[in-house]
Amino acid sequence: MGLIVQKYGGTSVAGAERIKSVAKRIARSRGESNRVVAVVSAMGDKTDDLIALAHQIASEPDDREMDLLLSTGEIESCALVTMALHAIGEPAIALTGAQAGIKTERAHRRAQIRSIDPYRINRELDRGRIVVIAGFQGITDDMDVTTMGRGASDLTAVALAAAMKADLCELYKDVDGIMTADPNLVSNARLLEEIDYEEMLELAQQGARVLAPRAVELAAVFHVPLVVRSSFNENPGTLIHEGVKMELRNKVRGIAHDSDVAKVTIQGVEDRPGISAALFEPLADAGISVDVIVQNASSQNVTDLSFTVGKGDLARTVRLVESLAERIGAARVSASEGWAKVSIVGTGMQHSPGYAARMFRALADKQINIEMITTSEIRITCIIDSARTADAVRALHETFRLDKAEL
Amino acid sequence: MGLIVQKYGGTSVAGAERIKSVAKRIARSRGESNRVVAVVSAMGDKTDDLIALAHQIASEPDDREMDLLLSTGEIESCALVTMALHAIGEPAIALTGAQAGIKTERAHRRAQIRSIDPYRINRELDRGRIVVIAGFQGITDDMDVTTMGRGASDLTAVALAAAMKADLCELYKDVDGIMTADPNLVSNARLLEEIDYEEMLELAQQGARVLAPRAVELAAVFHVPLVVRSSFNENPGTLIHEGVKMELRNKVRGIAHDSDVAKVTIQGVEDRPGISAALFEPLADAGISVDVIVQNASSQNVTDLSFTVGKGDLARTVRLVESLAERIGAARVSASEGWAKVSIVGTGMQHSPGYAARMFRALADKQINIEMITTSEIRITCIIDSARTADAVRALHETFRLDKAEL
Repeated sequence: MGLIVQKYGGTSVAGAERIKSVAKRIARSRGESNRVVAVVSAMGDKTDDLIALAHQIASEPDDREMDLLLSTGEIESCALVTMALHAIGEPAIALTGAQAGIKTERAHRRAQIRSIDPYRINRELDRGRIVVIAGFQGITDDMDVTTMGRGASDLTAVALAAAMKADLCELYKDVDGIMTADPNLVSNARLLEEIDYEEMLELAQQGARVLAPRAVELAAVFHVPLVVRSSFNENPGTLIHEGVKMELRNKVRGIAHDSDVAKVTIQGVEDRPGISAALFEPLADAGISVDVIVQNASSQNVTDLSFTVGKGDLARTVRLVESLAERIGAARVSASEGWAKVSIVGTGMQHSPGYAARMFRALADKQINIEMITTSEIRITCIIDSARTADAVRALHETFRLDKAEL
Repeated sequence: MGLIVQKYGGTSVAGAERIKSVAKRIARSRGESNRVVAVVSAMGDKTDDLIALAHQIASEPDDREMDLLLSTGEIESCALVTMALHAIGEPAIALTGAQAGIKTERAHRRAQIRSIDPYRINRELDRGRIVVIAGFQGITDDMDVTTMGRGASDLTAVALAAAMKADLCELYKDVDGIMTADPNLVSNARLLEEIDYEEMLELAQQGARVLAPRAVELAAVFHVPLVVRSSFNENPGTLIHEGVKMELRNKVRGIAHDSDVAKVTIQGVEDRPGISAALFEPLADAGISVDVIVQNASSQNVTDLSFTVGKGDLARTVRLVESLAERIGAARVSASEGWAKVSIVGTGMQHSPGYAARMFRALADKQINIEMITTSEIRITCIIDSARTADAVRALHETFRLDKAEL
């Protein structure tokens, strides 16, 4: 194999012993592959510790300085992993995001990668070195350090793999790969050998926290084959790639859930063009991520509109929506926490009748009420009482026989 | 006052509360001065902790990666100090050594500053901001991070003050300033209000650890007035500057001591040109810093040569010298630890008889044997048994009446 990009998460590099074992794994890959680039996250709880320290000093730390502060976590671990490689005789070099040529927009704490200039990385690879890169960070044209949001080391790895046309991008985590459901809820959840980009994207967006949706999206756009696997064992993990089996398959691949859901309903909204934009644009401007949106058919030109947000954003959302509701002449705003999303994901469901009915029946049999429903081409999502999350996930896992190996 | 460069040492920024009080001090200086640049060290024991972590992973960590690792300590504190300034309403920006335009040679762990391009610093000062800079670090032309050796944050501050033609460079430490002797040994040691560059340089080189000799040297070359003062009180500290009172004064200003001394003696060295070079060049190449060198007058064309090194370098030094001694036909090499240097420092001593005699008498009265003697224009140093260091420093402090305020 030519070029491989690997990424090691925070748990994988938490402490000297784990760093040494990561180094051994990288060295082994180098034996099998010519060129290896390894992206690393900050050690264990390092990022949280730095955030806590900043909040001891300032109640609202500036984003630019926060980025500079947080970037040190990944620089630390990339220097240490490189030292561990040297200690076992492997030529290697540590590069910060800036040194690796990762250029981003100036949007601190949530920067998007604009371009990657892999000149230095290629030069070091050509010299026979393993290149270890600090994940999660980049640099603006003005040489200011940026970070790309939680979990963005995955994104760094995928972006590098895309820019360098790597043959494979391996994401090493503290789990075995992508499961049919959360194994904490479903004891017979099964590891998926492979899954296509779209299915993975839906699972990630609907609450499977193993992989950030941004990383999956980028991999899909640039056709980067991804493997999610554990850094603590030799299991092959899950391959995420183009859906080669798509036309042969027509079934549920996995169950995703998210218990961090709050719901806002605006009643008595006049049903005319521009109302939704007037509502959601200010939320977007405030950086509030709206998830499910459901609008019922109107009667007498008046409709109800519901949407969900993360619990942490609820208070801000309600403040904004109440002032907007007045302006657009809505009757009433109500909001509540304690909701969960459960989703079934699988390519081809839309074209095959019966999936939705089976899902609703499974929930009904467990006396679980469905508050809202939303669907995509390859997904059906129900909003339910969060206290029933585990019951719902288990029921759906059983109904769709996800414990059984696929043909 | 126009531009002031301040530097806050590791003890001054150890912890959230101290960082907040450093921010208040910087803000106050900004009120008195138009433009303030603050250089910061890593928090407390951060650098030592990082070194210990590296040694858990590799017995001999690579210097390049060690520099990258250590540089995170100062980046962390400069981000935090800047956040603390924001929290009290001061416009401020944190810059790494690289962002501040501090270019060094490629000599990891002990890089020398090649140039400073203060473009970004000036731009931020022009925008009314306080500029907080990570000390101790720079960057090569190849964008590799370098550090400049222990205590080099002082050097960063002085170099910035020189490059930007600052009106004053204030070094904030955990001591009140430069004392006539180590107050841990001499209870009535007195704070010096001012001292000239040369005297300070001798004190620093002879063991006064408050200030690194490199920083004093640079300040002297570029005529940067330095103030060493405490970050924990309002005392004015010690002003280090051109020796304005030089011709009026003719006395001992301070006592320096260093108990970290090992001695090597090469006996029966043939007294011919080139022998010393043949001995000391290989030591310099090995990065061993030789301190005092004494060569006795020869008898019958054969001489003895003694020199001192830090205890930590003794083993390597002896290995090198033994192989060299054979080659140059020396009779015997002996080495021992347990020595100390005590020095009296003061401009004009050389031209005024009696200082050396008074020093030797003071030591003799305490039954302290003198092993070696070496002098400079403004200093007399004796090598003595390190067990007698405190006695020697106290005796000299009393003999030269350093507890009494100067006229």
